[in-house]
Amino acid sequence: MRIPPGVKQQDFESAVSQWQKHVGEEWIFTSEADADLYRDAYTPFRKEEEEIVPAAAVAPDTVEQVQAIMRIANRYRIPIYPVSTGRNLGYGGSAPVLSGSVVLDLKRMNRILEVNERNAYAMVEPGVSYFDLYRYIQERGYRLWIDAPAPGWGSLIGNSLDHGAGYTANPHRDHFDAHCGMEVVLANGDLVRTGMGALPGAQTWQQFKYGYGPTVDGLFAQSNFGVVTKMGFWLYPEPEAYFDATVSVPRFNDVIPLVDILANLIYSGVLNSNTIMGSPMRYSTLTNPTINELFLNSDKPEAVRALNQYAATNKLPFWDNRLKFYGPEAVIKAQWEYAKQKFAQIPDVSFQDGKLLRFPLPQEQIDRLTDKENIGVPSLEAFRDGARSPANPTPNIGHLGFSPVIPMTGEAVIESQRVIARALVDLGATPAFNTLPNSYHTRDFVILIGFSIMDDVDINKKSREVFRRLIKLAAEHGWGEYRTHTAFMDDVADIYSFNNHALRRLHETLKDAIDPNGILSAGRYGIWPKHLRKT
Amino acid sequence: MRIPPGVKQQDFESAVSQWQKHVGEEWIFTSEADADLYRDAYTPFRKEEEEIVPAAAVAPDTVEQVQAIMRIANRYRIPIYPVSTGRNLGYGGSAPVLSGSVVLDLKRMNRILEVNERNAYAMVEPGVSYFDLYRYIQERGYRLWIDAPAPGWGSLIGNSLDHGAGYTANPHRDHFDAHCGMEVVLANGDLVRTGMGALPGAQTWQQFKYGYGPTVDGLFAQSNFGVVTKMGFWLYPEPEAYFDATVSVPRFNDVIPLVDILANLIYSGVLNSNTIMGSPMRYSTLTNPTINELFLNSDKPEAVRALNQYAATNKLPFWDNRLKFYGPEAVIKAQWEYAKQKFAQIPDVSFQDGKLLRFPLPQEQIDRLTDKENIGVPSLEAFRDGARSPANPTPNIGHLGFSPVIPMTGEAVIESQRVIARALVDLGATPAFNTLPNSYHTRDFVILIGFSIMDDVDINKKSREVFRRLIKLAAEHGWGEYRTHTAFMDDVADIYSFNNHALRRLHETLKDAIDPNGILSAGRYGIWPKHLRKT
Repeated sequence: MRIPPGVKQQDFESAVSQWQKHVGEEWIFTSEADADLYRDAYTPFRKEEEEIVPAAAVAPDTVEQVQAIMRIANRYRIPIYPVSTGRNLGYGGSAPVLSGSVVLDLKRMNRILEVNERNAYAMVEPGVSYFDLYRYIQERGYRLWIDAPAPGWGSLIGNSLDHGAGYTANPHRDHFDAHCGMEVVLANGDLVRTGMGALPGAQTWQQFKYGYGPTVDGLFAQSNFGVVTKMGFWLYPEPEAYFDATVSVPRFNDVIPLVDILANLIYSGVLNSNTIMGSPMRYSTLTNPTINELFLNSDKPEAVRALNQYAATNKLPFWDNRLKFYGPEAVIKAQWEYAKQKFAQIPDVSFQDGKLLRFPLPQEQIDRLTDKENIGVPSLEAFRDGARSPANPTPNIGHLGFSPVIPMTGEAVIESQRVIARALVDLGATPAFNTLPNSYHTRDFVILIGFSIMDDVDINKKSREVFRRLIKLAAEHGWGEYRTHTAFMDDVADIYSFNNHALRRLHETLKDAIDPNGILSAGRYGIWPKHLRKT
Repeated sequence: MRIPPGVKQQDFESAVSQWQKHVGEEWIFTSEADADLYRDAYTPFRKEEEEIVPAAAVAPDTVEQVQAIMRIANRYRIPIYPVSTGRNLGYGGSAPVLSGSVVLDLKRMNRILEVNERNAYAMVEPGVSYFDLYRYIQERGYRLWIDAPAPGWGSLIGNSLDHGAGYTANPHRDHFDAHCGMEVVLANGDLVRTGMGALPGAQTWQQFKYGYGPTVDGLFAQSNFGVVTKMGFWLYPEPEAYFDATVSVPRFNDVIPLVDILANLIYSGVLNSNTIMGSPMRYSTLTNPTINELFLNSDKPEAVRALNQYAATNKLPFWDNRLKFYGPEAVIKAQWEYAKQKFAQIPDVSFQDGKLLRFPLPQEQIDRLTDKENIGVPSLEAFRDGARSPANPTPNIGHLGFSPVIPMTGEAVIESQRVIARALVDLGATPAFNTLPNSYHTRDFVILIGFSIMDDVDINKKSREVFRRLIKLAAEHGWGEYRTHTAFMDDVADIYSFNNHALRRLHETLKDAIDPNGILSAGRYGIWPKHLRKT
């Protein structure tokens, strides 16, 4: 049995035996073999001593059990790390930030407490996955969509609390923004309901977000201030139709008006989903060193001229942008016509209609779709990308995503592409995924630079070093990450340093007040309890 | 000179003289005549001893001055009450909750720090009014709309922090939801920037809301945790057109499918603005006691039959609903066609097209509009409603709004109308305004029951008593207020009592941590500092 850091063996044994009384012996896991199941499958410290190892796990079934666990943990000051389903792969999975913490595994709490078709919301427990909720809705024939990330096996609550996003329409695809109302167990075991949930017998807990007085919900996302045991989510009434289409432009600098028009359409609500920027030319850099070199020098007019010439000769559009529309068929057709009219300001722009789907869609047609996430159907197809295949005989073991937020302008796209590509070359690194921006949130772009976790300590060490350099380099340009793997939480927190880290100091003040013994998720998102804080 | 409660005269004089050094003598107001200008023009305690009276006011011009004022106030434990422009009429205006507090008047801080047309946002100081920002945008010819409440003379920051709303399209009309990024001076004078603002040189402070780690922004709205000195707001790119229309249904129970279809259209994004429920029949209750009696008994089938018959005989639609559309003309026409098709499920429904406006609109046409707020033009026309006129020879002096949140269902509309109307009759009160629901927020209805403040102590006492009874009555039905006048902040906080007031206890824990001397806005939204807390 591993003992959590700073805890006496006797105290830990007392806590475990008290937990057993509340939760049942079979739901406390103290053997090393059991605890190891909670290690991070995608850890960048694979086969290294620094790898984070949980001491144990406890899996309650009810809110009352969570309260009891927290009260006992508080008494013995045992570090606790709640996970909803532990599927946060690429960001730490089910492993804590502080090695030796006890994982509070909430996956048994998987009740769908309510789905309201008329007012289009659900209230769920942390163990409810996107698959669970999808099936529940299908079985009852409700005309409601969920919005799932790719892959869809994780927890609605967990993904929302980590500021995850999906692929259908706003506001549903911003999973934290789409929540309405929470129930939270605090470190001391106290139970709080936020928003209208604070009113006993409230009729609008899942319908009105703010409630009365300050709104505390934001405190419980990307943090370590409480254990969320219930959350409401707004659902999307099944739209009449879905349509996607692509806009392509031929020249390097066309990305500037392309993004300006795109941004205007998004901010106007004419486009209400995420869009994906592509660059067939950018892909050429992977196979053609000359093109890559030109890209690295795209701040020089002669390089841009050569790139444009290459694109023209090879009949490659320089940039393209995939748009998605949801709604009544006549409305989305009018939206697409309007969008084309706006994009037509760019000389030589071209358009390609994609697919039109009308709902409800027959099951065999859903099964054939390779982008089910766009119509709110959870799947595990995302794992296909990295799977072993003739084209990919040595697939990676996991990955890390470096994901800075940049402005929604063509200039920022050009600059970030060049700066990051140049840095990767200088550091001798090759990113595994593309670096093209995605309108992941409503009004900015996120770039995702993927690093492969391999079965090779030196490669992983190198990746970690490059990752840390990129965090600082991006910060120098005013670009900060919106989320990160547990291994880099302090590094990213360090760059949010305005006024001598005033925001972190405020987070610490709040942490000390809400969790004075510092038992909850030490180190998560760079927030450490007083006794573990550096200086 | 009035002295704040719990402060020694000598200490207050020391603080004032230190403030003068930072802010300049002319910007500290300690005479009773000056301080009285900060009393609440709409106080329900008019001519009564309980009226809240500020001790003094201080009006800084810069963030550094705000920091210095707070540091000095902290040293002498002087109660401070920040207001942006003090225009929060009906909710307390510029008067504090705790009598004798010093008003921190931020109206001199009226800089528009940035308006970005391409990324459609503004960053402003607290003294910037809707009129200020509107003029700034017009002068520069930006194709951007603001979203103003009625009246539009108040502060963007103040209104947003009080969870105010406006009249254009989502998400802009929810003024707190439309914000992105804050700068806050804490009680100890420390300066915090939230979201991406915590990253020095951030490129996306006004474009990405969450930043990294817990989001604290919600703490500074409807609260007393800090002094907000800057906020970003998302703006709405000028749409191509505006269109409004009305849907009417003939029978009492038609409100149930009417609201179901309306809700579905809103949740689907086909309707992206607020809608206003009307009932020509409901207005008959004001002049016809028989109809009023029938309404009070609308839980009885025979009363409903009689009401339906009266409506049919008098050719009055029972309910109507005014819809608004914003966007490209072809899109909004398609949305309206789709909406009509859905509403046509209700037998005998009728539709009436309203006005179609195309933008930019010539100034003389804007001037003629009586509902300028619907196209983002601030005005003071709201004051016309209560003004002296032949029809209204004794206008009231002010008003209070009782505004509970109810579910977006026809059943809730029917029940809340009857329960509140019955209570008002039983209590011998007549509300000044109508009680019809408004989709003030995205997914619920708000009912506004207005009480007139008169130049008569007995009437005002009675109104306060009725107001307090309604708070409790509504709570018994699961309906809670989203906002209230300072006079009733404790009463409303009291009903949000789940688990022995767990949410208020959490707010108090946070208050004690962020403002340990309890100097900021004591009592605001029911949050009192430790030394003034009722056990």
